Amino acid sequence: MAYPKPLEELIAQFEKLPGVGRRTAERLALHLMKEPEAEAQLFAEAIRAARAGVRLCSVCFNLGEKDPCRICADPERDPALLCVVEEPKDVESVEKSGVYRGLYHVLQGALNPAHGSRPEDLSVGPLVERVRKGKVREVILATDTDFEGDGTALLVAKALKPTGVRLTRLARGAPPGTSIVYLNRAILTEAFENRRPVD
Amino acid sequence: MAYPKPLEELIAQFEKLPGVGRRTAERLALHLMKEPEAEAQLFAEAIRAARAGVRLCSVCFNLGEKDPCRICADPERDPALLCVVEEPKDVESVEKSGVYRGLYHVLQGALNPAHGSRPEDLSVGPLVERVRKGKVREVILATDTDFEGDGTALLVAKALKPTGVRLTRLARGAPPGTSIVYLNRAILTEAFENRRPVD
Repeated sequence: MAYPKPLEELIAQFEKLPGVGRRTAERLALHLMKEPEAEAQLFAEAIRAARAGVRLCSVCFNLGEKDPCRICADPERDPALLCVVEEPKDVESVEKSGVYRGLYHVLQGALNPAHGSRPEDLSVGPLVERVRKGKVREVILATDTDFEGDGTALLVAKALKPTGVRLTRLARGAPPGTSIVYLNRAILTEAFENRRPVD
Repeated sequence: MAYPKPLEELIAQFEKLPGVGRRTAERLALHLMKEPEAEAQLFAEAIRAARAGVRLCSVCFNLGEKDPCRICADPERDPALLCVVEEPKDVESVEKSGVYRGLYHVLQGALNPAHGSRPEDLSVGPLVERVRKGKVREVILATDTDFEGDGTALLVAKALKPTGVRLTRLARGAPPGTSIVYLNRAILTEAFENRRPVD
């Protein structure tokens, strides 16, 4: 190895990140070596601060600075609506859109038999408890619309069935603002199957 | 923003890295939140250690744990040969190949008018000094073979001309081990122009 040992170790840390290969890890680590020292220290500090200052919400399993998190503690939100998503980044997306004012439940992943993600790795049990105890009127399934997301939605639906809660799933079809020529077979199939009468 | 503030700050730090957009930064930061706490702390520590333990070699401008660096201080290497490269990663590549036993000179970049990299940003002055003072017999130009690298090689060649040192450049043409159908016009042009007689 021609790189100094501490630099090799930083490259190794970058390489552990998902989707980061050796070349990218080298590029990122060398960038931090070129930056002013203070910039690199800010990065190190941001990692420490994020780990120290962010915790899992024991109600919805999203990441937050407090427990319960800001959203769960917000009296303005409708506690009768639960939106079930896979990951914290999904909450971020829905929040950014501003279209939803209920609460969330973050499953902490999706069912993925190929990668060994099992039902017990997801926060489905606490979700059922939450629905049983609370005054939840409707649970909206907002898992990804891929193979894993569909399987996960099925799992959650089965688990919630005995509670009798109203279960819905996000509408599927052609995404608005696109041209029909860009839609693949899977999208067109669902768009045709779920077609609606024009008033 | 739905993410807690310390997490937003970590995402912002990742986003400053070259080639890392918002989505990737989110993915990397969220990965560090999922990792065991100790793993994330190791990452932070690696950044600090790399910045504290790695310095620029005042002779060759490569990164090293000491100054002069391990390569410059190695009595086994031929001090009469200088290989001029753009970046530390180029030294790493040549070292891994094991084909070269001389010393290096790292320019700290390439001439790139579009990105505002000027001749004075590169360590060309110190290179000329090094050749003037030392017992250098040959300088091998090993800059990238793209537009910026070619321009940089030209700049270095001009600067070294007055010293009278022997100047060479890495051979160019079809990379060994490839199929002719994969070679683009630029490669084929050089491969034909630089064709050699078969003994």
